[in-house]
Amino acid sequence: MIKANDLTLKTWVEIPTDTDFPIQNLPFGIYQVEGQSPRVCSAIGDQIVDLFRLSELGYFTDFSIPKAVFENQYINDFMALGKKATRAVRDRISDLFEKNNTELAGNTQVLANVLHNKKEVELLLPVRVGDYTDFYSSREHATNVGTMFRDPDNALLPNWLHLPVGYHGRASSIIVSGTEIHRPKGQQRPDDSQPPVFGPCKLLDFELEMAFIIGQSTNMGECISTADADDYIFGLALFNDWSARDIQKWEYIPLGPFLAKSFASTVSPWIVTLDALEPFRTDGYEQDPEVLPYLKYEGQKNYDIKLEVAIQPEAGEAKVVCNSNFKHMYWTMTQQLAHHTVNGCNVNVGDMCASGTISGPTPDSYGSMLEISWRGTKPVDMPDGTQRRFINDGDTVVMKGWGEVNGLRIGFGTCTGKVLPAL
Amino acid sequence: MIKANDLTLKTWVEIPTDTDFPIQNLPFGIYQVEGQSPRVCSAIGDQIVDLFRLSELGYFTDFSIPKAVFENQYINDFMALGKKATRAVRDRISDLFEKNNTELAGNTQVLANVLHNKKEVELLLPVRVGDYTDFYSSREHATNVGTMFRDPDNALLPNWLHLPVGYHGRASSIIVSGTEIHRPKGQQRPDDSQPPVFGPCKLLDFELEMAFIIGQSTNMGECISTADADDYIFGLALFNDWSARDIQKWEYIPLGPFLAKSFASTVSPWIVTLDALEPFRTDGYEQDPEVLPYLKYEGQKNYDIKLEVAIQPEAGEAKVVCNSNFKHMYWTMTQQLAHHTVNGCNVNVGDMCASGTISGPTPDSYGSMLEISWRGTKPVDMPDGTQRRFINDGDTVVMKGWGEVNGLRIGFGTCTGKVLPAL
Repeated sequence: MIKANDLTLKTWVEIPTDTDFPIQNLPFGIYQVEGQSPRVCSAIGDQIVDLFRLSELGYFTDFSIPKAVFENQYINDFMALGKKATRAVRDRISDLFEKNNTELAGNTQVLANVLHNKKEVELLLPVRVGDYTDFYSSREHATNVGTMFRDPDNALLPNWLHLPVGYHGRASSIIVSGTEIHRPKGQQRPDDSQPPVFGPCKLLDFELEMAFIIGQSTNMGECISTADADDYIFGLALFNDWSARDIQKWEYIPLGPFLAKSFASTVSPWIVTLDALEPFRTDGYEQDPEVLPYLKYEGQKNYDIKLEVAIQPEAGEAKVVCNSNFKHMYWTMTQQLAHHTVNGCNVNVGDMCASGTISGPTPDSYGSMLEISWRGTKPVDMPDGTQRRFINDGDTVVMKGWGEVNGLRIGFGTCTGKVLPAL
Repeated sequence: MIKANDLTLKTWVEIPTDTDFPIQNLPFGIYQVEGQSPRVCSAIGDQIVDLFRLSELGYFTDFSIPKAVFENQYINDFMALGKKATRAVRDRISDLFEKNNTELAGNTQVLANVLHNKKEVELLLPVRVGDYTDFYSSREHATNVGTMFRDPDNALLPNWLHLPVGYHGRASSIIVSGTEIHRPKGQQRPDDSQPPVFGPCKLLDFELEMAFIIGQSTNMGECISTADADDYIFGLALFNDWSARDIQKWEYIPLGPFLAKSFASTVSPWIVTLDALEPFRTDGYEQDPEVLPYLKYEGQKNYDIKLEVAIQPEAGEAKVVCNSNFKHMYWTMTQQLAHHTVNGCNVNVGDMCASGTISGPTPDSYGSMLEISWRGTKPVDMPDGTQRRFINDGDTVVMKGWGEVNGLRIGFGTCTGKVLPAL
């Protein structure tokens, strides 16, 4: 396996020093260029690595992988090969581009078809999402929401500390970073003494989340233990769970958010493997009250991944409105997956599970405008003199995430989405 | 188009007089026999009609449909042809088996491969479900639940009469009728003064529902009006939304049901087209307060479809515990779909939308054991002397549905599921 924390590992590919994609990362995605079918790819620095082409050139022949796995609209078939195979491919890529390897280095004719500058390609939605689940696993976020909407003295609901609260989300409207969205319309009731009204959402928000992608299916009736959960998690991506707060407030009792979320969710184009994130493992929260046995886990299951959200107005300077970290998760991914399947619910390759808004302990680390502006009572001053309580038409929300340790940086790229006016 | 209410339409296929599948029905499904790939099929009486074979024999050549559409694990590709094409196929089948048609009648050699007795085949899950949505659209059901768990004087929550409340469900665990399920395990808190416990669900319930299947996709940002909704609905099936009441009670606030439902949902194997159900259209409820413009509709959008639920103990006589009707829907399917997409949420061919529990006005028409036994306070006496408050291990829940008018009966077959002990 690639030692992601091996700082001696260098590549002959020229890469920017601050890249999210050193050769220790090697994430997976799908790219397309004009006149060519979508293909599985990886990234080194600013270069997109065409895995279909490498497969055609015979570099993966040892692993007996059908070429159709790489000439594909999604990485699902690739993930479904299993971690042994996908690790072997990732290790082989690492070898090929390692600084002393001469198999490809300098062979400009071949490389012209293997490497593409990221500016020349389109990155597509990498995963065909079967089912999408959204959790609610940051204690700070749940506490903030409970404080604002319920009772500051009893901000957390009775079940929150006992189980990772989650709900099913809409898979069809998960889109890749860069896709513009229209402000949703819907039913709202701004004045409780008046009937509800219909119109464009007025309180459009982002939610800073990370999503993990299932790489191995289970059958109905099977449970995944916290000890085995990592084997089922192929990798992670940045995730913006767009939220229409006014629609949500009116619709969500008693069955949960529906149209307030289902209009769009944006995911970053690169799936960063758990292997690449090994150096960033960190301790989870101490959990008190003690959790039930099926939710107990051993080892470091949180990840120290810095997260940042900026708002970029149409014609103004961007402002970073949130600096959070994926380590601010009370419930770990392993607990989420153990809980999700403890009733026998089956998971499939390509299922996506998002973390819920990741808020840290301080206001500058809150992961949604709802919290940052505290329901609109604390507007954010923008460089152009305007203010933001929520997201305006023309704004682009830009999320970034990266781990950094001893000079090694492994990143997720960006997860961006621009908001257009309601249709 | 086949006139489903044309009572003169008869077939040369021998069919039982009380069949759900006269030649006016012609539903679509997927069947398999040993050693043969799954194929799209229809039904006439007790006979399964192999549409792949009919396609191979050239009976659909006028419609230019690739054979792979019929040799398929799901009917999605068939539905995606559009209603013009699927109607043409259905009309052609109707012609072929019409009593005076001699193209196939009597040709025993060919028929041996076209028709199979239903006892000789396995019916598979007909639809690859992309997203699954569950609504909550029976006023009587919502009132019963609100009366039991909240306040009899304010049983309906404030939003209920203004919008069809719905939530996303789990698609991966939708299974076809006949598939056995295991009692789910999960976290419950039977005693609020004690910590939660983990174990097999003690309050396992069915929910009598119907599901409609999307036959035409939309793009993100597009809305489906109530006037156009029927064009997007390919057909209907029976649906049992299994529910673990004790798990649900503890987990569902604030984000809705999750593990209480995701362990299994059972759907009947035949998708009955809207065309076949034309004779059963009936008026909807008068809606007061008046709904917002996007939820208004014209015409008859409810369906008079009798629904029945029986509990069949392992070694005892079955008992019918519910006689309801699909016409007991306050919110029509057209309103559900208009609401679902009003925020721009896209739908895909194969998406499934279930009605929510369909309860009528009288206790014998309630669509769940929760309501029938009124939270367990009114147990049901079974023929074998036992009682049921909820569903026991070994019980099979059998749902049936059919329309009947002027001697014409169009039915859905059965939707059954047996409960095995927790694993």
